[in-house]
Amino acid sequence: MDIQKPYVIGVDLGGTNTVFGIVDARGQIAAENSIKTQAYKTAEDFVEACAECLKPLIAQIGGIEKVAGMGIGAPNGNYYRGSIEFAPNISWAHEGVVPLAKMLSDQLDGLPVRLTNDANAAAMGEMAYGAARGMKNFIVITLGTGVGSGIVVNGQLLYGHDGFAGELGHVTMVRENGRTCGCGRKGCLEAYCSATGVARTAREILATTDRPSLLRDKPADQIESLDVSIAASKGDEVANEIFRFTGKMLGEACADFAAFSSPEAFIFFGGLCKAGDLLMKPIEEAYNQSVLPIFRGKAKFLVSGLMNANAAVLGASALGWEE
Amino acid sequence: MDIQKPYVIGVDLGGTNTVFGIVDARGQIAAENSIKTQAYKTAEDFVEACAECLKPLIAQIGGIEKVAGMGIGAPNGNYYRGSIEFAPNISWAHEGVVPLAKMLSDQLDGLPVRLTNDANAAAMGEMAYGAARGMKNFIVITLGTGVGSGIVVNGQLLYGHDGFAGELGHVTMVRENGRTCGCGRKGCLEAYCSATGVARTAREILATTDRPSLLRDKPADQIESLDVSIAASKGDEVANEIFRFTGKMLGEACADFAAFSSPEAFIFFGGLCKAGDLLMKPIEEAYNQSVLPIFRGKAKFLVSGLMNANAAVLGASALGWEE
Repeated sequence: MDIQKPYVIGVDLGGTNTVFGIVDARGQIAAENSIKTQAYKTAEDFVEACAECLKPLIAQIGGIEKVAGMGIGAPNGNYYRGSIEFAPNISWAHEGVVPLAKMLSDQLDGLPVRLTNDANAAAMGEMAYGAARGMKNFIVITLGTGVGSGIVVNGQLLYGHDGFAGELGHVTMVRENGRTCGCGRKGCLEAYCSATGVARTAREILATTDRPSLLRDKPADQIESLDVSIAASKGDEVANEIFRFTGKMLGEACADFAAFSSPEAFIFFGGLCKAGDLLMKPIEEAYNQSVLPIFRGKAKFLVSGLMNANAAVLGASALGWEE
Repeated sequence: MDIQKPYVIGVDLGGTNTVFGIVDARGQIAAENSIKTQAYKTAEDFVEACAECLKPLIAQIGGIEKVAGMGIGAPNGNYYRGSIEFAPNISWAHEGVVPLAKMLSDQLDGLPVRLTNDANAAAMGEMAYGAARGMKNFIVITLGTGVGSGIVVNGQLLYGHDGFAGELGHVTMVRENGRTCGCGRKGCLEAYCSATGVARTAREILATTDRPSLLRDKPADQIESLDVSIAASKGDEVANEIFRFTGKMLGEACADFAAFSSPEAFIFFGGLCKAGDLLMKPIEEAYNQSVLPIFRGKAKFLVSGLMNANAAVLGASALGWEE
């Protein structure tokens, strides 16, 4: 680290908000602010708003010359090209390639800017400040609206040939009559084990059986994964079964991932992890039952070390130190 | 490369033969010889025989001072520890950990020796001398008695936390009523798509249908994958169907592998590849049909560039340049 430049900027670019944080080497956020991602018609307008929002924050820590670099985590982010590409949920980026890293750098006196997808940013954050400190081989799996992943091999994020590696939410887990996934294919891990997938499992069980459950207290189409967590924590048998089903599939998927990269740990991130052992125990059990014997009992199963911090901003900021 | 040391030694340690080759920087084998792997009671006796066999070869190229290093490809080889571990088919290594790299180095005046598993050695060979020259992200899949793999990421072999990464023959492809695999688990890729798996598919189809086929000319229990290749090349419909089935499963597996590491190419190696397009076309078709849209049409599907050379020795020798 250049002691003349003790800060980096982390940007968590989401479908609703874009959050900026100025972060020091210990992972403390010195200044932060946010804008609405979709309040702008074009990428140019958005970038200008970013610069406007950042200027007072940068002034607060002593000026741009104190900043080593900037990291952005964004949906459909491509690390090699520093771009957001065909992001379905961002109005100014859903139809093409937006070279956001360069555009922001140009607005900020040539500050080095790196960009990656949100799950990769989470993995960077775990390595720099979270549960993966000191690890060189691990996989972060994010369980949110979708299932994302950031894979670290030999201490480096795995980007692959084109910058799009690490789409573990889209390995096929059910090859016959699988659920349709948001990607248009069938049977993906994401279609079952995302927060959305868990709610869908609940609705399926309620619709196809007459088993009593606390989940019946709510109209089926309003059930969310949080309702399943709450019901399970009250001992609801259907809700518990949903977590066992979800955990089993995640554990079996992790067994395949171990055959690929044999990580030291699988780190789970996102709202669904608040279910704690209800989810984590079935994952670890299914993993050890189905994994190749040489890997059995070796991998750690951890919940993110950044759940209560501003994880996405911290993760993205870790990219800023790469320069 | 040290011009004072223009050679490396490659060792292909197989269940039957252990082949030694002295290789130059262009991948030409300057001298070679072999011993029977299992003619020795202990690892110590085997190592002594290796040294005896190598001495005249080394003398032939001008002495040990001309040799930069030695690489060994061996079943159940662990790169980090330089050892063969619990190799079921090698009598002097099936019950424990044999630190073969150190043992051989001690016999050869402290020559640097590296060891990895046979599929990883094949991947090194493709990168140094074969179909993957110039590539930094690719996967070699070996289709032999088993299904092995060597995964290269950012120009480096993927070893994982414990040195055992890259066991892609043991991802689960059939989760319900899958075939029993040699590893003791069910539904592994290897149980269907190895040479042995192909012969098994043939026997299953012949036993459960009365469809006419050239494959019926031989007793079912003697059918080998080569018979299926020959029958398919003569237009036999059952044999062609077996290749379509095998290729489809391999293509679907590769689609999952792309979601993991997004390689530039999949390179297939081993006897089964002699079937050529009969196998390669169904693989590529199934891949493009089932892979996530962002990866579609991007990956190359290649047959090994080392099929007619002494690929295993060349691959292992490439490890010798690492020092």
